[in-house]
Amino acid sequence: MSASIGWHDIEAARRRIAPFAHCTPVHTSRLLDAACGARVFLKCENFQRTGSFKFRGATNAMAALDPAVRKRGVIADSSGNHAQALALAACLHQTVATLVMPEGANPAKVEATRGYGAAVVFCPPTHDGRRDAVARLIAETRASYVSPHDDPLVIAGQATAACELIEAVDRLDAILVPVGGGGLLAGTLLAVRHLAPKAQVVACEPAGADDAARSLETGHRITDFVPHTVADGLRTPLGEIPFEILSRDRPDRFVLVDEDEILTAMRFIWERTKLVIEPSSAVAVAPLLFGKLDLPAGRIGVLVSGGNVDLEPLFATMRGAP
Amino acid sequence: MSASIGWHDIEAARRRIAPFAHCTPVHTSRLLDAACGARVFLKCENFQRTGSFKFRGATNAMAALDPAVRKRGVIADSSGNHAQALALAACLHQTVATLVMPEGANPAKVEATRGYGAAVVFCPPTHDGRRDAVARLIAETRASYVSPHDDPLVIAGQATAACELIEAVDRLDAILVPVGGGGLLAGTLLAVRHLAPKAQVVACEPAGADDAARSLETGHRITDFVPHTVADGLRTPLGEIPFEILSRDRPDRFVLVDEDEILTAMRFIWERTKLVIEPSSAVAVAPLLFGKLDLPAGRIGVLVSGGNVDLEPLFATMRGAP
Repeated sequence: MSASIGWHDIEAARRRIAPFAHCTPVHTSRLLDAACGARVFLKCENFQRTGSFKFRGATNAMAALDPAVRKRGVIADSSGNHAQALALAACLHQTVATLVMPEGANPAKVEATRGYGAAVVFCPPTHDGRRDAVARLIAETRASYVSPHDDPLVIAGQATAACELIEAVDRLDAILVPVGGGGLLAGTLLAVRHLAPKAQVVACEPAGADDAARSLETGHRITDFVPHTVADGLRTPLGEIPFEILSRDRPDRFVLVDEDEILTAMRFIWERTKLVIEPSSAVAVAPLLFGKLDLPAGRIGVLVSGGNVDLEPLFATMRGAP
Repeated sequence: MSASIGWHDIEAARRRIAPFAHCTPVHTSRLLDAACGARVFLKCENFQRTGSFKFRGATNAMAALDPAVRKRGVIADSSGNHAQALALAACLHQTVATLVMPEGANPAKVEATRGYGAAVVFCPPTHDGRRDAVARLIAETRASYVSPHDDPLVIAGQATAACELIEAVDRLDAILVPVGGGGLLAGTLLAVRHLAPKAQVVACEPAGADDAARSLETGHRITDFVPHTVADGLRTPLGEIPFEILSRDRPDRFVLVDEDEILTAMRFIWERTKLVIEPSSAVAVAPLLFGKLDLPAGRIGVLVSGGNVDLEPLFATMRGAP
């Protein structure tokens, strides 16, 4: 694995994903601006196919595979947005995706992944159980493993969201990005440094899963921690390649938000902008609403990473209504 | 009051509201199309200012007032979307709106209305209590009463949503509209008959508040009923002027949906299209998802009337999560 991703890799990603991915809209809201004291531009990856930016990276990796290799299928261990993204990317490339998920994975996510035509294989919910299941399946099927973030093609694909935002909105002073495995942040850094070098890149993490901030601070990648956050997409540790990229091309700042701030920001966005965003996306909105940015009021882009929320508990309360 | 609203009234409404209202986007979704077996075009009035189409009618009525009269303010009895719409319309026209709301009205809606700068006056939660409060305030302030649907200017304003939809999407076979007081339906009928006479207009009502369907069937306006529906925007009886217009320019069909269908449709839209829509809007989506239309698979427009939902009970469950 190597962290050398050049601008031409991102340009290639844009060409590869163009026939498949949406160029998502940028939304603005007077109420949000008033609450933040800035002009805010929401890059709506919740409207991306499969409901998150992950479809960009998965599609780029898929499209770049040698057709003979691609025919043998792809595999990943994910029960989150990468699972659905890879499932649809495989389907659109006439091949099969196998997703390894821990026993007890959220049934809604299992169904969503199967809904895109993927095979789901359950494994014991441990690190070893997952690794063994993936290794066995790769040996059996010779499928290609597609990492959710430790893959230059995936990172180059994720970079395309920031490219579109920068093209749609000029003179951005900063771009806020949520950080989980770091693929979106690494890709965004590469895109911003090339296309809008004056814009700051602000990495946003839950305080209950601040491994990326601590990894960059200490200089070694922290993987041994127990995340405590409602932002399920950000519980995963910072990946190796993102860590390499971030160590070199450092984000201008890290901002941590607590659980209350995440949920308050999520509710604000749902209520005032009518966008369904997932908690991970709210992590990049909360710093604006809670005045954590310490930036002059300016033009701020937010990568709204996705909108996949399990609505079952929410709607259960509604069904009790008149 | 008179039901004579001509095409020139709608053109005038478009000019009047243009500086204030959003031309809302039209969203599509492959998943929705697949579920419905049709091409569906969602006219997103949930993205309209104040979160619903009501801002169009309120703004048209406000802008058409003689400036000296407008200066004395406006008044309405509403605790719903019309209240917020009129409040913002008044604010943008440098005048004051007074909203009469029943004691015990939803605090979130009271706050939202006050948030747009309006005065809220509470009254006993009865028909007489409301009428007396409105009469007293009009006598005191000489403010103009703006009805949520019994006003040709309001109906002409609501018609502009369908105009924009028809301009954005050609060859529509049908347009689905939720029916409460009937202002949106009446306006849509006028717009569709003029701009897209081949398109059917489908009036969608909750089975638990089917007064419009029964009014047209029996030929007299039914106002004495107790609505039972989660679609709070559609509990209000069909207005007099909408009834006149509908009696003459009849919708091509009425479709009724039950409470389960409304909530299932609402959840589908939230989950799959990432749009926060209110139950009233889901009433116009449900017929598609539940195969109630009996139309050849075609190009179907849906007026997504608004996105104002009280999220407090929903988020209360989330705050209990890890």
